[in-house]
Amino acid sequence: MKKAVVLLSGGLDSTTCMAIAKHEGYEIYPISFDYGQRHNRELECAIAVAKYFDVENHKIIRMDNVGGSALTDENIDVPKYKGDGEIPVTYVPARNILFLSYALGYAEVIGAQAIFIGVSAVDYSGYPDCRPEFIKAFQNVVNEGTGAGVRGASIEIKAPLIYLTKADTIKLGLELDVPYQLTSSCYNGGAEACGQCDSCVLRLKGFEEAGSKDKIKYKKGIQMCD
Amino acid sequence: MKKAVVLLSGGLDSTTCMAIAKHEGYEIYPISFDYGQRHNRELECAIAVAKYFDVENHKIIRMDNVGGSALTDENIDVPKYKGDGEIPVTYVPARNILFLSYALGYAEVIGAQAIFIGVSAVDYSGYPDCRPEFIKAFQNVVNEGTGAGVRGASIEIKAPLIYLTKADTIKLGLELDVPYQLTSSCYNGGAEACGQCDSCVLRLKGFEEAGSKDKIKYKKGIQMCD
Repeated sequence: MKKAVVLLSGGLDSTTCMAIAKHEGYEIYPISFDYGQRHNRELECAIAVAKYFDVENHKIIRMDNVGGSALTDENIDVPKYKGDGEIPVTYVPARNILFLSYALGYAEVIGAQAIFIGVSAVDYSGYPDCRPEFIKAFQNVVNEGTGAGVRGASIEIKAPLIYLTKADTIKLGLELDVPYQLTSSCYNGGAEACGQCDSCVLRLKGFEEAGSKDKIKYKKGIQMCD
Repeated sequence: MKKAVVLLSGGLDSTTCMAIAKHEGYEIYPISFDYGQRHNRELECAIAVAKYFDVENHKIIRMDNVGGSALTDENIDVPKYKGDGEIPVTYVPARNILFLSYALGYAEVIGAQAIFIGVSAVDYSGYPDCRPEFIKAFQNVVNEGTGAGVRGASIEIKAPLIYLTKADTIKLGLELDVPYQLTSSCYNGGAEACGQCDSCVLRLKGFEEAGSKDKIKYKKGIQMCD
């Protein structure tokens, strides 16, 4: 059976990716990171999602981070949604590069054929490492910089959501029975999502456009559709 | 003053890179990794080297590794030198990609203009992530996947030893007064180098060809020149 490492944050996109990888016939190996996030909510959700998908092995990597982001530094506030196209302070320097590097090492060790990453270049927060140009560049690093690559059996970086809007991702996910009730997207964490950060705004808008209802809890007065 | 992050393992090559970065006028920010190496000898040397260079801040990143290498797994023996061009079991999957990713995040946070990495494609152990094709591919990831890159102020990946033999690296280092007595190269660690692993054999050959004497201690009967 072909194997895929799936970058699993416990959010909406990565959980959809898990379902897609499974649907495509891969044996799935989720990998998550404990990198000093502001909150453990994400990691708890990742664990719940992995359990739901009944995977053999959910790898959780602890690692130091280099600082400089509102998502890892409590002294930097998480801003409300602006949508101005600028790189926001929630950008974690080189985060997806780091995550993909770990996934790559893991994929080499277990002999996986693919790595799934749930980035989207359509509805996103303006992070440079969510764009197709980045994925293409990283694929080239895999081809040139790994044992698998130079042996001609390179590992494919798959970003199936990259051209999808959040609404399209949710529609696809609902067809695949993705357990969105187990996921978390809020940059502020907590049992109730804030509904005001970039990530919450994109999620709520996505469910609204997909004609569906988000089943996670939001702070009172936030839920936009029913 | 321009800044450079230097990947510092405490070995011969990375220490030479520190001296080159300093010689080129950079304020140097060494970064080292505690990733479950077989031994702490490397990290001790990295700390001694950073102290010698009198740097403001030596960043040491702790991180889990994904396994699968003789350098991180005590159940896999470090082989003696073969020189057959095959990728050896001392290859740590995606290691340089991971190290560069961390260095990249750190470079973004401190606003560095360059990252120095001491890889060589001439006298090396056959690792794919030491080749110029890999460095070029990673540079493209920097350009496409980071805030600095998309703002047009990309961070340069500098691999000044990539076309040098070990002997040429040592000759250059001796001109720059590199404290080779503080460095360690042996895959087996320990206060006395084994003299038989890939790394020791390349180091000893390098000093011999450079017409110099290696001042670190080897196990009795190993030192090849005087």
